[in-house]
Amino acid sequence: MNTAIVGASGYGGEVLVKLLAAHPKANLVAVTSRSEVGKSVSEVMPELRGSLDDLVFSSSDPETLAVREDIECAFLAVPHGAAATFAAPLVASGKKVIDCSADFRIANPATYEEFYGQAHPDPDLLQHATYVLPEIAEPGWESKKLFACPGCYPTSILVPLFPLIQNKVIGVDHIVANSFSGTSGAGKQSKLAFSYCEVNESAKAYGIPKHRHLSEIEEQLGRAGQGEVIIQFNPHLAPMNRGIITTITAPAGDSTTEDLYAAWNEVYADRPFVHILDSDTRPESKYTVGTNRVDISAIKDSRTGNFVITSAEDNLMKGLAGQAVQIMNLWQGWDETEGLTHV
Amino acid sequence: MNTAIVGASGYGGEVLVKLLAAHPKANLVAVTSRSEVGKSVSEVMPELRGSLDDLVFSSSDPETLAVREDIECAFLAVPHGAAATFAAPLVASGKKVIDCSADFRIANPATYEEFYGQAHPDPDLLQHATYVLPEIAEPGWESKKLFACPGCYPTSILVPLFPLIQNKVIGVDHIVANSFSGTSGAGKQSKLAFSYCEVNESAKAYGIPKHRHLSEIEEQLGRAGQGEVIIQFNPHLAPMNRGIITTITAPAGDSTTEDLYAAWNEVYADRPFVHILDSDTRPESKYTVGTNRVDISAIKDSRTGNFVITSAEDNLMKGLAGQAVQIMNLWQGWDETEGLTHV
Amino acid sequence: MNTAIVGASGYGGEVLVKLLAAHPKANLVAVTSRSEVGKSVSEVMPELRGSLDDLVFSSSDPETLAVREDIECAFLAVPHGAAATFAAPLVASGKKVIDCSADFRIANPATYEEFYGQAHPDPDLLQHATYVLPEIAEPGWESKKLFACPGCYPTSILVPLFPLIQNKVIGVDHIVANSFSGTSGAGKQSKLAFSYCEVNESAKAYGIPKHRHLSEIEEQLGRAGQGEVIIQFNPHLAPMNRGIITTITAPAGDSTTEDLYAAWNEVYADRPFVHILDSDTRPESKYTVGTNRVDISAIKDSRTGNFVITSAEDNLMKGLAGQAVQIMNLWQGWDETEGLTHV
Amino acid sequence: MNTAIVGASGYGGEVLVKLLAAHPKANLVAVTSRSEVGKSVSEVMPELRGSLDDLVFSSSDPETLAVREDIECAFLAVPHGAAATFAAPLVASGKKVIDCSADFRIANPATYEEFYGQAHPDPDLLQHATYVLPEIAEPGWESKKLFACPGCYPTSILVPLFPLIQNKVIGVDHIVANSFSGTSGAGKQSKLAFSYCEVNESAKAYGIPKHRHLSEIEEQLGRAGQGEVIIQFNPHLAPMNRGIITTITAPAGDSTTEDLYAAWNEVYADRPFVHILDSDTRPESKYTVGTNRVDISAIKDSRTGNFVITSAEDNLMKGLAGQAVQIMNLWQGWDETEGLTHV
Repeated sequence: MNTAIVGASGYGGEVLVKLLAAHPKANLVAVTSRSEVGKSVSEVMPELRGSLDDLVFSSSDPETLAVREDIECAFLAVPHGAAATFAAPLVASGKKVIDCSADFRIANPATYEEFYGQAHPDPDLLQHATYVLPEIAEPGWESKKLFACPGCYPTSILVPLFPLIQNKVIGVDHIVANSFSGTSGAGKQSKLAFSYCEVNESAKAYGIPKHRHLSEIEEQLGRAGQGEVIIQFNPHLAPMNRGIITTITAPAGDSTTEDLYAAWNEVYADRPFVHILDSDTRPESKYTVGTNRVDISAIKDSRTGNFVITSAEDNLMKGLAGQAVQIMNLWQGWDETEGLTHV
Repeated sequence: MNTAIVGASGYGGEVLVKLLAAHPKANLVAVTSRSEVGKSVSEVMPELRGSLDDLVFSSSDPETLAVREDIECAFLAVPHGAAATFAAPLVASGKKVIDCSADFRIANPATYEEFYGQAHPDPDLLQHATYVLPEIAEPGWESKKLFACPGCYPTSILVPLFPLIQNKVIGVDHIVANSFSGTSGAGKQSKLAFSYCEVNESAKAYGIPKHRHLSEIEEQLGRAGQGEVIIQFNPHLAPMNRGIITTITAPAGDSTTEDLYAAWNEVYADRPFVHILDSDTRPESKYTVGTNRVDISAIKDSRTGNFVITSAEDNLMKGLAGQAVQIMNLWQGWDETEGLTHV
Repeated sequence: MNTAIVGASGYGGEVLVKLLAAHPKANLVAVTSRSEVGKSVSEVMPELRGSLDDLVFSSSDPETLAVREDIECAFLAVPHGAAATFAAPLVASGKKVIDCSADFRIANPATYEEFYGQAHPDPDLLQHATYVLPEIAEPGWESKKLFACPGCYPTSILVPLFPLIQNKVIGVDHIVANSFSGTSGAGKQSKLAFSYCEVNESAKAYGIPKHRHLSEIEEQLGRAGQGEVIIQFNPHLAPMNRGIITTITAPAGDSTTEDLYAAWNEVYADRPFVHILDSDTRPESKYTVGTNRVDISAIKDSRTGNFVITSAEDNLMKGLAGQAVQIMNLWQGWDETEGLTHV
Repeated sequence: MNTAIVGASGYGGEVLVKLLAAHPKANLVAVTSRSEVGKSVSEVMPELRGSLDDLVFSSSDPETLAVREDIECAFLAVPHGAAATFAAPLVASGKKVIDCSADFRIANPATYEEFYGQAHPDPDLLQHATYVLPEIAEPGWESKKLFACPGCYPTSILVPLFPLIQNKVIGVDHIVANSFSGTSGAGKQSKLAFSYCEVNESAKAYGIPKHRHLSEIEEQLGRAGQGEVIIQFNPHLAPMNRGIITTITAPAGDSTTEDLYAAWNEVYADRPFVHILDSDTRPESKYTVGTNRVDISAIKDSRTGNFVITSAEDNLMKGLAGQAVQIMNLWQGWDETEGLTHV
């Protein structure tokens, strides 16, 4: 299958390029970027020197892309707002579209407007789109025309929580999630606040109390619990390039650690990209970086009555590009792990 | 005043050496270490080359130290268990003792045994000791013979929470504290798990669900609330040398952000080492490293009904050596900030 | 082809495991380790969770390995001295052996003894071995029984210098090479000096003036120049996990930058793992990490009459495991790049 | 003495603020910045929260500063070119001026123009200025009106080399200096190339072959050797905030290591900010960060006939702000170490 990446010059785009270029069943036929037009992929991504020397960045024009017959599937790695302007003509021309932005993650346009500060750019198309976190996506999702790839933080929270809320292993009140993300999560940044000397050797909370990712987290948890779910979400910036760890406190009620693991195993035992660690092992972000895995574990705290649930993932892989490729694989009926090698 | 540091060769000991060596009202007359006997301070701490070249490490023998008449105040920077064996003869010989270990932090010996896995080494002496987090210490603490300097995590949690619980600005149920600490908090380590390549570019939770520091955190919060307080405490290891950030979720009830800041201002407005940031600013650990400050801020989340409270400190300063010197200053009736320059 | 890795639990061993496990033409049938016997690969290398769960570390016994008929090619990733004790029985039993230690890198046993402080462990076998830096190896090297994979620093120096000395583009007097290596080059270390807080935020020279790797560097340069070559080599430790950059000053004489690039292009233009950058671009280690490339560039300094030559590589890939796999590929007559994906 | 810092908002300016604010004999009465006018020092430098809250940034206007009678000594921490426009009116108004830019470092205006790409902005004033690296400055320097504080790299090279060339302990041909600098040396940067993810976990050479600092290095070495000296200087960027290490190869001729140390001891034995390490110890940048020291050591390589000379310093202290304060101290006849505490 011939694929294109729209907005390929960021950190997530770069990982997508690597994955698709090495994918056994996909070709990468086009990469676009507003700022890098005319440069080869290996010029923009020197790590790829010696490969993809002939693939050149073209401009990011929705209509031009829509009429290219050699593109069968497009990955959108542009900011929210912009993504919708690409999605519409691409979908209209019959192409498969996997959007890595927030534009089609949230079913309720009012929620989108509340969290992103602007009216939804394409509410009609939104009805033909769906949110796909593969391990917990609604059955039948493949019939939609357009897929929203989840955000990095939401993946690290939804994978552990979804089955627990769905099976009422945990209560939905007083859930608190603290995440700690590598700096690539902020994208390629030329602001002083993201310069080396400012980020290095420091950590801080940010985006409190209402980070944008709450919108998709709570909508999905609401789907799991068949009712509104409100959680506390505290993101933090960590002095490292890649990786997210999340630590969640959730009320256990009468549930035991065994109940929790049973709920996880039922959903994830056969899934290659969710790895359930034993109750005494905490996931470390370094072990997930370069992979498409989420590692999860949990322990019940008898003193507080909470489960303490921990997860780790690579924000650029399972949190972004890897998950997008996983969606493509499943959509095509290929093996879920196809091409999802270490990157 | 002539001071000594027992167990001065660790990271906390090194900061104590720098502070006391430069202190305008204290002399540093002795440093001890089991492993570095006979070496000069600047050999063991090359950062100090050119200063303290004549101060030589002596062996850590409690009785020998107790009879040295030139020592008026001793700082104990040895592990718990060992600290008590120094404290007893030093106190008996009339010296002032400030202990940086856990041995005299917890008033209830049963709690000590529960969290430290061994009977308290000296319950009698414990009755003449008290826990001194200067800004919230019990009035009259100076009359005791022996002072326990708080742990690094507890300082970052107690400073923001103590006045809020004392004044019932927050409820005591469902409090969740997540801390991210630099690696020096683990001390000088020759274990593989603390080697550069293992810590660098990664983050992880650890010590869950019952980290030792919970013992002093909950005992002090219980003192604030005049009743038992149980919290969820999730510590994490961060890839940086120094600094701790803590993010706390606590139920606001009817309290407003203004109520919270009023409670803080009442206690801290005149204190030099607690800095209250405005509600929209999150503390960053880098701004506290090298200082004895704790920076705190809070915001009410109307969606969850919680306050999200954040703090930052240098684990080796306000979290250890700086606080010990602050205790000495207050005890002596000196200005609280004496000698607490940037280190 | 069925392969085994002897001493697979170090950083280099781990990269070898990843490469061989994913190699399209090789199977990994055995991994050994003195310390990890009985554990699965994914227990020892949690990054591999979900893959290789059935491959279990066996003990490192030379005779046992020698009689295993399912092993056709063995990679030795044990320290020098130990490597020879494995090489002898493995070679005797007809297996192909690629040694990543120093035991068979140096043709002259006296040089080995001078630099490694011990008599060569197997001078007879040494005569049947040869040093293989694939791009500059002696033609016909494939006829030997045993191959020594070059050291990390030597690779970063020999690739740029070998053709220049061979073609007399540079003089051999006054060559100075300064290298700056990531900390994984020191292996898995539990010494305090390699702990996070000691390595982080610092840099230092070490191994001056006679680092062990000089032995193979000078022997190979001597081969290029058909006479003795003595260089100055200054290695440094850098606060990063992976990567080496090397900056070399060498007398240009009458040679121009064009002469230098012509000599490089003649040897390397068709080689996939040496990438020649233009004269104004300096290689950066990050662009080579995860790849098997060496990136090189050079510029003539008309003020000093020197070429300043710079190179970058991943010490664990082209500097170790990647190069070992490259040797296997060439030896087998496979495509040189087979299985040398990003790791 | 009342002091002012012109251009105080950069990294070097921040260290100057800390040093002057704590200096026992100097007051800091003014700080200027084009971008931060009206903000307090602790707003711009949150590390100083709780101190200097009343000192507010004023605009950087040369004439306004020149007529302020409360300023006796001004430190210029603005870029070259701009510095001269401040120096002229300030000197004319009788104030002492210490310039941290390159504008008055080079005695020969033609050299300035060659290396800085523009005509010298004030050749007349240049004649009343002089370069002051205190330990090797020309006797009588205090009589000039204006002092140029050396660059960071030059300090790390001139301190070890100056006495050796002056005393003909080393030859002047084939000197090669390789430096590795922390990223704060590039100043506060909002370019993508200096963003966290780009600098972290990587190293590279840059500024080759003709870095601007060569101009002052070679002019000063020429003064030492009473003749032209040309060296090879290779700077590198290291993934750390602060610190420089330099490794120099220089021909020893008949000189012994003892000769070299004798030359160093003659000049530096009594100087507090040059620390001579024994021949087998390499300086590490971490031990100098926060101090005003340069640590130096050297060893003779009998194989090459070179000395390998290594140095380490904090680029923001001895390489910039600390050295500027040291110049002020000496100029005023104060103790050289006054106020040069750990920062």
